[in-house]
Amino acid sequence: MASLVQDKVSGSRNSKAVAAAVQVLTAAFGNRVVTSNAVREQHGNTLTWIPNQPPDAVVFPQAAEDVQQIVRICAQHGVPVIPYGTGTSLEGHINAPQGGVSIDFRDMNRILAVHAEDLDCVIEPGVTRKMLNEHLRDQGLFFPIDPGADASLGGMAATRASGTNAVRYGTMKDNVLSMKVVLANGETMITSRRARKSSAGYDLTRLIVGSEGTLGVITELTLKLQGIPEAIAAGICPFPSVEAACNATILTIQSGIPVARIELLDEVQVRACNAYSKLDLPETPMLLVEFHGTAAGVAEQSERFGEIAKELGGGPFEWATKAEDRTRLWQARHDGYWAARGLRPGASALATDVCVPISRLAECVTETQRDAKETGLLAPLVGHVGDGNFHLSLLVDMDSQDEVKTAKKFLERLAERALAMEGTCTGEHGVGQGKAKYLPAEHGPAAMGAMQAIKQALDPNNIMNPGKMLPEA
Amino acid sequence: MASLVQDKVSGSRNSKAVAAAVQVLTAAFGNRVVTSNAVREQHGNTLTWIPNQPPDAVVFPQAAEDVQQIVRICAQHGVPVIPYGTGTSLEGHINAPQGGVSIDFRDMNRILAVHAEDLDCVIEPGVTRKMLNEHLRDQGLFFPIDPGADASLGGMAATRASGTNAVRYGTMKDNVLSMKVVLANGETMITSRRARKSSAGYDLTRLIVGSEGTLGVITELTLKLQGIPEAIAAGICPFPSVEAACNATILTIQSGIPVARIELLDEVQVRACNAYSKLDLPETPMLLVEFHGTAAGVAEQSERFGEIAKELGGGPFEWATKAEDRTRLWQARHDGYWAARGLRPGASALATDVCVPISRLAECVTETQRDAKETGLLAPLVGHVGDGNFHLSLLVDMDSQDEVKTAKKFLERLAERALAMEGTCTGEHGVGQGKAKYLPAEHGPAAMGAMQAIKQALDPNNIMNPGKMLPEA
Repeated sequence: MASLVQDKVSGSRNSKAVAAAVQVLTAAFGNRVVTSNAVREQHGNTLTWIPNQPPDAVVFPQAAEDVQQIVRICAQHGVPVIPYGTGTSLEGHINAPQGGVSIDFRDMNRILAVHAEDLDCVIEPGVTRKMLNEHLRDQGLFFPIDPGADASLGGMAATRASGTNAVRYGTMKDNVLSMKVVLANGETMITSRRARKSSAGYDLTRLIVGSEGTLGVITELTLKLQGIPEAIAAGICPFPSVEAACNATILTIQSGIPVARIELLDEVQVRACNAYSKLDLPETPMLLVEFHGTAAGVAEQSERFGEIAKELGGGPFEWATKAEDRTRLWQARHDGYWAARGLRPGASALATDVCVPISRLAECVTETQRDAKETGLLAPLVGHVGDGNFHLSLLVDMDSQDEVKTAKKFLERLAERALAMEGTCTGEHGVGQGKAKYLPAEHGPAAMGAMQAIKQALDPNNIMNPGKMLPEA
Repeated sequence: MASLVQDKVSGSRNSKAVAAAVQVLTAAFGNRVVTSNAVREQHGNTLTWIPNQPPDAVVFPQAAEDVQQIVRICAQHGVPVIPYGTGTSLEGHINAPQGGVSIDFRDMNRILAVHAEDLDCVIEPGVTRKMLNEHLRDQGLFFPIDPGADASLGGMAATRASGTNAVRYGTMKDNVLSMKVVLANGETMITSRRARKSSAGYDLTRLIVGSEGTLGVITELTLKLQGIPEAIAAGICPFPSVEAACNATILTIQSGIPVARIELLDEVQVRACNAYSKLDLPETPMLLVEFHGTAAGVAEQSERFGEIAKELGGGPFEWATKAEDRTRLWQARHDGYWAARGLRPGASALATDVCVPISRLAECVTETQRDAKETGLLAPLVGHVGDGNFHLSLLVDMDSQDEVKTAKKFLERLAERALAMEGTCTGEHGVGQGKAKYLPAEHGPAAMGAMQAIKQALDPNNIMNPGKMLPEA
């Protein structure tokens, strides 16, 4: 085992310290500490083009106390800790550029309490969103945040995930009530009380949500829940252009229609979904919408949306009120990433993720599509357009240096374009390694200085997921 | 002027430094620096029983650059800065226990931009919520957070205010998109982009919201707006007991009725409102509710709420669909504090503010009422019960040492009771000076340590509103 650790000397800060830490961890946790190449490599893996940087070891804690002990051992040895949920993050969040210990929450997947009266629940970080919703269904409750992947809720909190429902229910920042977090000093902090609101001090909950493991390791979450709506209706509406679809979205939001989901697919993405999910949608820009409410409320919302769509040249409007039709539709949307990859087998898909004020959305999407076309790369587009957020899957042959170079330049132009429109370089995928270089341009020196000061204050030895989010000092 | 400053030596850290800072400020800002006793005392004033601790000087900036210059001058001299909005905070937030310079935002009250398409606006911190809503009305928009007082929006952000609409629209943490903030180092930080969501780094917006001026001074805010609902209906529903009213509230929230306001008044408060606002409500516990939506949606919500109320023994239910009747009703609710004081002229009103998970609300309210009764003090109760948040106005003769002692002990028992029920000692009034002593019990040592570390990192010389929120090191 020690030799395996030493094999990875190049990436690690201090191979002796790592070996010593792994020895202590193994004494404490036995075969729940794994250093095999296969497992290490799987834990550095990400769904993007960022190269794999495996940790030195992977530990599988079974309780919050285990996590505290792991962090304390690593802190004593100055060894990095990298929290790991399901490995579905897209920007290299779980890589170990300086080596260290990956903490895999696979075995911490218990639902500790459901408080139906308070519409909240208490869970361990390894619970995935599908597991939770399965568990809640019988009680008529659900957790609304849906990033597509069946991610762990700890990971979703750490990366401030959102997805298709965010236009109505917000992002993880709006749906985490409280967390238990092991800090770099080995103490466990509770970020907030379970009351719905509080004005008692700094908002530690929101500080940890989106901090990507750089300030602490989440060991428990209290999440807000929603009642399953009495009625759900979903529909598909084709549009003559992406611009018309964006304008219909703006008008829908402005009219105060409480749409639960409003998703854009461009014509390339529709083609991909038709092929992958065996659908026969018209291959033109399209909005997928969903409404939640009472039967009468959903009917009223649908009607109003239909009028807006028609006004902007969209339609005909097809409704899926049956649960199985809706499921098929959203499954196709969620499979969009794999459908996109199917357009060019063997190519990698570079997922982009900018978000702009909705008034600039049509302009940003149109310019980006023109830019993508000029690169010659296939780049199907989907968007959580109610929030001004959209993704392209840039299909790139990673063996072609030309294509990689072209793709990288495109990514830079896209980030610059979003920033120039008062937008963000990352709407929901987080920063990780991939977006760290854009952060200074997005936030400016004073905010970057504040973030660095907070990181330094809470993690002075930089052991919490180092090399992520903030440029290294 | 210097003599005035020296008169206050006892409270100030260093009277020479203060005198020097005031001299430099006066050179820069002329008669916008005021050191008269009357003005200084008015700027330490709060609406509670906390003794007045006036600043050494008050400055009236006219632009963000002025604020930056004021902070830099104060930082150079190690002199505290205390931001001042309208002085309506309740926990001594604007007192100057260590002396220093109060920054009054009276003249920074411009609405800089309204982006109707994006449902947001950009304002200076001195704009009050009524000024903003007046300005927005013609565009069919409104800003929903309503703490009762016509507070400045800078102050509302700084204290994480909420109020009657929070059950539907959230608190200030949910409605501030971004801020410009002058830090202790004199730099101006922008907390976020204008996009609706982002996962780009630490959530500086939420860190500043509720930080009570202890981390920086807000010089500009970007706020989320809402479309004015097509239909609004408000109603009054009497209940046989506070418990029945609380249970009706729980059932309303659980049923997913998107109630915009649901306010409890106990029988003592109803009596006070009848007398103060010339109403003739039945003197029994009462819910004031309001629904926002389409005409059909509001009708449906009202009907469902009516059924719930009836089920729990409430009613009859009286509706006010006319704007003037609604206004009269909510004016009476907003005047509740003054109405309460009217019950015992000459007495002070100590406003309490706990918030518990809604499942514990009936229990917490009932126990608190029993406790209040045993003190012999009049204590009318109002509650934003949809959030589990309620206030008593404890009517105390501050000249009676016995009453003051009794009141203080009651406040302590109330905080302990809320904490024991997983609640918070301050739902929306903030910490300031009054609640600082409860914070360690609420958050525990690790979270308190994290807050102290953040404060130390961003304000190492402790010049930003010192003596508030965190116990002094």
